[in-house]
Amino acid sequence: MTKKDIVLTGDRPTGPLHLGHFVGSLQKRVELQDICKQYVMIADYQAFTDNVDNPQKVRDNVLQVMLDYLAVGIDPNKTTFFIQSLIPQIAELYFIYLNFVTVNRLRRNPTVKTEIQQKEFGENVTAGFLTYPVHQAADITVVKGNLVPVGADQYPVLEQANEIVRKINSLYKVQVLPEIKAVESKVPRLSGLDGKAKMSKSLGNAIFLSDDADTVLKKVMTMYTDPDHVRVEDPGKIEGNVVFTYLDVFDPDKQKVQELKDHYQKGGLGDVKVKRYLAEVLNTFLDPIRTKRLEFAKDPQAALDIAFKGSLQVREIGAQTLKEVKTAISLEY
Amino acid sequence: MTKKDIVLTGDRPTGPLHLGHFVGSLQKRVELQDICKQYVMIADYQAFTDNVDNPQKVRDNVLQVMLDYLAVGIDPNKTTFFIQSLIPQIAELYFIYLNFVTVNRLRRNPTVKTEIQQKEFGENVTAGFLTYPVHQAADITVVKGNLVPVGADQYPVLEQANEIVRKINSLYKVQVLPEIKAVESKVPRLSGLDGKAKMSKSLGNAIFLSDDADTVLKKVMTMYTDPDHVRVEDPGKIEGNVVFTYLDVFDPDKQKVQELKDHYQKGGLGDVKVKRYLAEVLNTFLDPIRTKRLEFAKDPQAALDIAFKGSLQVREIGAQTLKEVKTAISLEY
Repeated sequence: MTKKDIVLTGDRPTGPLHLGHFVGSLQKRVELQDICKQYVMIADYQAFTDNVDNPQKVRDNVLQVMLDYLAVGIDPNKTTFFIQSLIPQIAELYFIYLNFVTVNRLRRNPTVKTEIQQKEFGENVTAGFLTYPVHQAADITVVKGNLVPVGADQYPVLEQANEIVRKINSLYKVQVLPEIKAVESKVPRLSGLDGKAKMSKSLGNAIFLSDDADTVLKKVMTMYTDPDHVRVEDPGKIEGNVVFTYLDVFDPDKQKVQELKDHYQKGGLGDVKVKRYLAEVLNTFLDPIRTKRLEFAKDPQAALDIAFKGSLQVREIGAQTLKEVKTAISLEY
Repeated sequence: MTKKDIVLTGDRPTGPLHLGHFVGSLQKRVELQDICKQYVMIADYQAFTDNVDNPQKVRDNVLQVMLDYLAVGIDPNKTTFFIQSLIPQIAELYFIYLNFVTVNRLRRNPTVKTEIQQKEFGENVTAGFLTYPVHQAADITVVKGNLVPVGADQYPVLEQANEIVRKINSLYKVQVLPEIKAVESKVPRLSGLDGKAKMSKSLGNAIFLSDDADTVLKKVMTMYTDPDHVRVEDPGKIEGNVVFTYLDVFDPDKQKVQELKDHYQKGGLGDVKVKRYLAEVLNTFLDPIRTKRLEFAKDPQAALDIAFKGSLQVREIGAQTLKEVKTAISLEY
């Protein structure tokens, strides 16, 4: 990975970001901004595809997400932030790309299939939602991104994008668009408070980066542990016990975590005690993030302006990319 | 119909325009430009949806179509011409609208169904092609068009556009987009040389506005007449006889046409004779169009510049429309 690599990531602004985002993606971005050319996109149009009934939620969360980015240390001097709907070339590339993808291919995309089920669209899936992998192909290629840090569940979406890239490059005998590689993160997914595989706002099992210390404590107290660990003196299981999963991820004191695990497995360590400890660990971790977030939140316009300024830069890059693609398809005037 | 009405029409630049276009649409546009605010769009992106293998053909025919428009008397001082791919707001509106249309609704659209069969897409229909009615909704609404002169076969496409317009207006409690009405033309469809219901370049049964006099004569000689009219002295049928269909449309001398019909039905009038007469009528009709076309063709850049200049105007109007739609969906910044 070098400064020549162009990395794109983004989030749908449907709520503030949580620990799952941090572990799965945000910390990786803080690393990557020193290694590659990094773009971070606030995917408001993408969020619109399944929030047509409440787009104001999307609009409001653009700021929340931007504050989260700044709070965790994604640095505007190193990373270019932009807002998807402010880049008209994405929509135009999307239209062009839709002509290289069959409807059946989209229906067979495993990621899309799963999401259509999860969101219970049934037979009423909109054309906007079904085609979102093509929109993502436009997001990535508009800045000629070649690296995308994603979980394995998103690989089919990248494969869809690469099919389009290859088709255009081969059909028109050009090398306009780079192929895209996935970058896997070390801990791709953090389980939710309830032990479910994925922390998610919509599942109501998330700790947000903006939660205050009290809220964090309360949420940790609801955490899924070992359902058979009834009395303090009983031996407890640490496998699938979310409290220990989180300690493994967030406690820098590995020795202490090992001691707690041993104690818990032997018996004599109560859930409440270890939960209180985890809450402390999490609050220690979140404190500097919260402080920075409050600082940035004092001037919301300044935070948004960072995204607006970046969007102007991406529009220029996008204009160049679109020009090259239009030239390839003989429709540049 | 008043100056407040906004009418949009357009053509896919896949070949020069023919007599079918003239009868079905072009002559109506020459009328409408004095009555309404008229936009005429060269639909290059639309043509791309089923010409990805040969986009150069699309690019080349932009000029041919523009010359045809000018030659028939669509007047740049009265009509605003524009090129679809030069209006980025169309792509953005298209993306937004796709979120108000289900994939199944598009599959059930009778016009789309027929075209998928005709073009033999089968299971390989692209997302770009399936969604073209949504793209057309964007074409029309980008200039807030409320009148579209089309044949009855295109009504389902307008209905699709109106569904989107109504959904946006009602969901967000706005009156941003006007509903669209079809304007029917007097002679909506001219049969082909071979007697097929529709004259079309791809069916090879067309007389182009740019055909020279010799070509017109040759083509008329191949025309479908009455297959049972074998000897000159036999009585002939005029129903379904393309030669008489064309005479009805293009010969201003109605009395002469009636005499020919009577003679033909009685017997004693040969196909060759009546065809030679039709060729004369058509060439008299086409002569001034051809002369004007040759004149405009001397300066192709000037002809294209008319479309480029109009596109700049439509971009400004489009920016305003898009701003209003984005405000309605809470995504204006």
